[in-house]
Amino acid sequence: MKNTGMRWKLPLVCLLWQLAMIILYGVFIRYDEESDAHWIETKRIENITSDIENDFYFRYPSFQDVHVMIFVGFGFLMTFLKRYGFGSVGFNFLIASFSIQWALLMQGWFQSLDFSDGKIKIGVESLINADFCAASVLIAFGAVLGKVSPVQLMVMSVFEVTLYAVNEYIILNLLGARDAGGSMVIHMFGAYFGLAVTRVLYRPQLDQRKNESVYHSDIFSMIGTLFLWMFWPSFNSAISHHGDGQHRGAINTYASLAASVLTTIAISSLLGKKGKINMVHVQNATLAGGVAMGTAGEMMLTPYGALIVGAISGTISTLGFLYLSPLLEKHLHIQDTCGIHNLHAIPGLIGAIVGAVTAAAATEGVYSRGGVDLLPFHRLIATFGFEGRFEGRTPSQQGGFQAASLCVTLLISLAGGIIVGFILKLPIWGDPPDENCYEDEVYWEVPEDSLYTVLASNPPPLKPNSNGNSEP
Amino acid sequence: MKNTGMRWKLPLVCLLWQLAMIILYGVFIRYDEESDAHWIETKRIENITSDIENDFYFRYPSFQDVHVMIFVGFGFLMTFLKRYGFGSVGFNFLIASFSIQWALLMQGWFQSLDFSDGKIKIGVESLINADFCAASVLIAFGAVLGKVSPVQLMVMSVFEVTLYAVNEYIILNLLGARDAGGSMVIHMFGAYFGLAVTRVLYRPQLDQRKNESVYHSDIFSMIGTLFLWMFWPSFNSAISHHGDGQHRGAINTYASLAASVLTTIAISSLLGKKGKINMVHVQNATLAGGVAMGTAGEMMLTPYGALIVGAISGTISTLGFLYLSPLLEKHLHIQDTCGIHNLHAIPGLIGAIVGAVTAAAATEGVYSRGGVDLLPFHRLIATFGFEGRFEGRTPSQQGGFQAASLCVTLLISLAGGIIVGFILKLPIWGDPPDENCYEDEVYWEVPEDSLYTVLASNPPPLKPNSNGNSEP
Amino acid sequence: MKNTGMRWKLPLVCLLWQLAMIILYGVFIRYDEESDAHWIETKRIENITSDIENDFYFRYPSFQDVHVMIFVGFGFLMTFLKRYGFGSVGFNFLIASFSIQWALLMQGWFQSLDFSDGKIKIGVESLINADFCAASVLIAFGAVLGKVSPVQLMVMSVFEVTLYAVNEYIILNLLGARDAGGSMVIHMFGAYFGLAVTRVLYRPQLDQRKNESVYHSDIFSMIGTLFLWMFWPSFNSAISHHGDGQHRGAINTYASLAASVLTTIAISSLLGKKGKINMVHVQNATLAGGVAMGTAGEMMLTPYGALIVGAISGTISTLGFLYLSPLLEKHLHIQDTCGIHNLHAIPGLIGAIVGAVTAAAATEGVYSRGGVDLLPFHRLIATFGFEGRFEGRTPSQQGGFQAASLCVTLLISLAGGIIVGFILKLPIWGDPPDENCYEDEVYWEVPEDSLYTVLASNPPPLKPNSNGNSEP
Repeated sequence: MKNTGMRWKLPLVCLLWQLAMIILYGVFIRYDEESDAHWIETKRIENITSDIENDFYFRYPSFQDVHVMIFVGFGFLMTFLKRYGFGSVGFNFLIASFSIQWALLMQGWFQSLDFSDGKIKIGVESLINADFCAASVLIAFGAVLGKVSPVQLMVMSVFEVTLYAVNEYIILNLLGARDAGGSMVIHMFGAYFGLAVTRVLYRPQLDQRKNESVYHSDIFSMIGTLFLWMFWPSFNSAISHHGDGQHRGAINTYASLAASVLTTIAISSLLGKKGKINMVHVQNATLAGGVAMGTAGEMMLTPYGALIVGAISGTISTLGFLYLSPLLEKHLHIQDTCGIHNLHAIPGLIGAIVGAVTAAAATEGVYSRGGVDLLPFHRLIATFGFEGRFEGRTPSQQGGFQAASLCVTLLISLAGGIIVGFILKLPIWGDPPDENCYEDEVYWEVPEDSLYTVLASNPPPLKPNSNGNSEP
Repeated sequence: MKNTGMRWKLPLVCLLWQLAMIILYGVFIRYDEESDAHWIETKRIENITSDIENDFYFRYPSFQDVHVMIFVGFGFLMTFLKRYGFGSVGFNFLIASFSIQWALLMQGWFQSLDFSDGKIKIGVESLINADFCAASVLIAFGAVLGKVSPVQLMVMSVFEVTLYAVNEYIILNLLGARDAGGSMVIHMFGAYFGLAVTRVLYRPQLDQRKNESVYHSDIFSMIGTLFLWMFWPSFNSAISHHGDGQHRGAINTYASLAASVLTTIAISSLLGKKGKINMVHVQNATLAGGVAMGTAGEMMLTPYGALIVGAISGTISTLGFLYLSPLLEKHLHIQDTCGIHNLHAIPGLIGAIVGAVTAAAATEGVYSRGGVDLLPFHRLIATFGFEGRFEGRTPSQQGGFQAASLCVTLLISLAGGIIVGFILKLPIWGDPPDENCYEDEVYWEVPEDSLYTVLASNPPPLKPNSNGNSEP
Repeated sequence: MKNTGMRWKLPLVCLLWQLAMIILYGVFIRYDEESDAHWIETKRIENITSDIENDFYFRYPSFQDVHVMIFVGFGFLMTFLKRYGFGSVGFNFLIASFSIQWALLMQGWFQSLDFSDGKIKIGVESLINADFCAASVLIAFGAVLGKVSPVQLMVMSVFEVTLYAVNEYIILNLLGARDAGGSMVIHMFGAYFGLAVTRVLYRPQLDQRKNESVYHSDIFSMIGTLFLWMFWPSFNSAISHHGDGQHRGAINTYASLAASVLTTIAISSLLGKKGKINMVHVQNATLAGGVAMGTAGEMMLTPYGALIVGAISGTISTLGFLYLSPLLEKHLHIQDTCGIHNLHAIPGLIGAIVGAVTAAAATEGVYSRGGVDLLPFHRLIATFGFEGRFEGRTPSQQGGFQAASLCVTLLISLAGGIIVGFILKLPIWGDPPDENCYEDEVYWEVPEDSLYTVLASNPPPLKPNSNGNSEP
């Protein structure tokens, strides 16, 4: 009998890490120019005439949408399990709250490498980036959902955030890749990391019948799906350039997601039992278009390009749920509770490739009319950041660096996931025995007089007969 | 036995239409000035000093609120049916995702009639308008909810979006009516269209007992109600004039909706069984104040005017649910699953009339202090669009055109709905037999070991005795 | 047998009060400069170059977030009760809709004391303030949840809004306290008012076993928790100064809330049964960091200060649920359904104290670099409002006034709550008998064929045996 007691482990980890955060924040983290009370002087010095120019007003609405995606989106998406609703939404809450704190530090340290005073300056864009990092952790959580203890999740989070920041620094700062919505940085990274972890934690005796939904848990899950789906345009445009960059990112993602819905339902019905639609596909594959638009969303992809990417992503993602996931489990021993391989890994890959191609195909004409008194290529320069360290880079070179970033991301996420997986395998973290996987009662006080107990029965206690009336 | 199999029909429709969208987008749709990478040149040419002047920052937060209303609001509002949750939220998702794509094209073609290069330029306002058009389709969906196949819904959508764009063009562009929140364009149009369709699809043998809720499905439904209610101020102000137009639209709608809640609950309790409040009324009639503020929301209606409109709308809508809906079903054979006649048709009518009266009563004094160096009437001109084609129009004339628009909307929606109803009656679309109406299992894979089966029993299998304990 | 019939009382109250609102709005309420059609002239007179300077664009996104907190956040938070979902979300809807209307008047009257024409001018900031006032009412509702009739709630609302406006006027306008997120004005006031009311309404015979959740009602409740949690940064920054004020308020609240989650789960696991986490704590104490950041959120608290406050608040709030609430009930006869003492009263107190200390510790250096040509102290002046009536006030004096405001708030809320409690005790409001407390069927039409009846059984009708199969 495993000891799944959390009385000392979980509080210890939570309290110590929170204490560490407080100390580190005290040493390193400060308000940035736009959130500090000295903003009034910044305005004067930089000749800013209005408070509305504060970055807060450019990004805060998008930040709040992203915030909803992290906590309600991811949290409720995972409530599809019939007896794991508390864990889905509650552990999501816990590890996201920890990850955003740790991400502000890790991302800040890497960013502040380029600056001098050793302090991390935070503003609304930092909050968005921290939420993005948390998204990556929650994606990995989807792979191990129901099979790990909260302490394991906290340990996983601390490592994943760290590696995330490393990978992000390498591909965005060193390689100069563009990835505003994180097809690579967030989705591929989180997914391959999580898949590696769950592979290492493989449980051969696991009864997958508990990895199932009931009617109303599927509807709860749709709350998560829809908030993710609706706010994805904000996700992909949240940290893009002011003006047309954010505007275009939202439009492309909007179009891509709409196309995903149609192809998802088409493939689900075409290949499902008796032509019926499967809720698992609707809950997940409809989002593939958002994932796949993460890199190219802010680029001049054109709206029909976005539709094509969305349509393809929805199709492939649904096919993944139908055919690939069972194979991965059977042959590669990857037990992927939420199917993140289909929702994040493959669409993330698609997004990374689309981004590389779109970057490589960028031309002066598309990004600038090239007026005499306007720098030729200037918008290209702004969009792709061909400035400073990357001055003089050409679009085709950029495409190459995008592709290189894809490879770096794959490498770091898989290697990191394997190592972290072995750390999580240590028998000290209170993981649940096989027979208690996908059940809340291991780690949560579950109401006694509840439907929860009814849900345990399999098949259900009451079967309606053919005319719809039940007989006990 | 009807053939309700969707294996070929639904995928075919979805994939072909998605393909058509991709091709048409490729030919016609481009980014507009503010979402294109040339925005940097537009700024220079139009002497715009800051990216914050991009329309994105004026409208994107409202767009996101509207987006939530379309997908979560409408979707969850309809989950009140005890065994139709998947269909409510899932088909809502499907047809909205299709409608927004098709609407961008249809609305774009009509708008681009006034322009020269034959391309449709899209920006955030286009996305809002596309969402508005989808709202109209979802309103009609409410009338036929549970009685049609997804293929029928897709067919209905393609026609309704088309007719919506025609009607919108006639009343906004040709007649010069104002209808920023769509009392006529969206609500009346969607409702009368849907009512006509459901009339043609009349099912005499339908067992209306399945058109019922259970306790927790009513709570799911309140998620939809509340997101609609909360974000309606954004809906009614999303495409109003920058500045005071949007500001006023939000305030008026806020006030009107608050009043609706009080009168709805008052009437529900006054006329319900034993003075008890009915959730159907709370879920629906509380929203009537938003519908009725669709036309006049941006006008100088005054806050107390908004309260009056909201109070009246809530009252009439609740009375409609109590008395009118049963009559419509019995005598006119209109089976209106969600009661859209009470929530959209009548409040839409009220809104159209209020708009016409408010427009006709507009005076120079209210809309402008008439300073010497300010064009007299100028704000009146801006608010009502008395420019270009409509230069020199007076408020009372405007009132007349508003009323004419109401009639045009009625005509097109009813005629269109009847025709589309007959198209949907063709026996090729896989509609469900009467005994499977309001049931998910026809078109969805429903979890086997689920409460879904328990919900089929009627009355419930377990009755608590008087002291609250159950006996089998 | 008590008469709980609402047929005449509830409609009468609702309709009369709505009528009163309409009349009073007609007499007193007008659009303000920025929502009136004369905005175009205001722009010219005040030399405003862009519509984006309209306060609407600074505050509307935050307003909508606050609006979601009021209606979905508070409403769903209270759906944890297994048989009181309709009442939670429905009565929340009713009294919030009434309170915002009444608050616009009451707050407007007090604000307009400083102006001449006797009219109340409303804009987006007024809407936010009205929502804030409604929040206070809903907090009090949490204490009496399930034990009062809707008429009692309406009566309570009318008095509480009135006293709220009085208290707000005294501490913000007369004492010059800062309390942008309402640690005192909203949370302490609402909580101590509600606790006093519920004390007066003490029911000695109440069977607290009905004050319980079931599995899926706890998940519904998490919808409320999460929307409150996610949007709290908007709540605390909604009415702060443009620019850095709003920006900093959001950052501080974000940090504080994240810390609350970790300490809440740590303490819940440390002191709960067998180390298991309790959903009641996760639903409530995780929010304590937001409450406690209500006063100091906009100040230069520093991010690590915010983490400390959040960590402490989460800890104390969880301890309150574990140890204090049972004591309060046993010894002080305070039956606090939702535990508002732990979520709002204590964290509000903490927030008030943190605010007083932070204000007293404010220095010129932190708030301004003190350039030669910049007024020394000027940002301090703006942040704390040391202008006009409060010119020349020092930070330490400000700290004193903050502390005085805390005391005033305590006094008015407790005294007011006791008086209103006795008014609500009059046997004319149709309150439910003890045995029908926490049950929807008293005031709501509950679906007959529903799980609602199953939920009444205690223990549940079907117990799974050890291997997970049920036996009747």
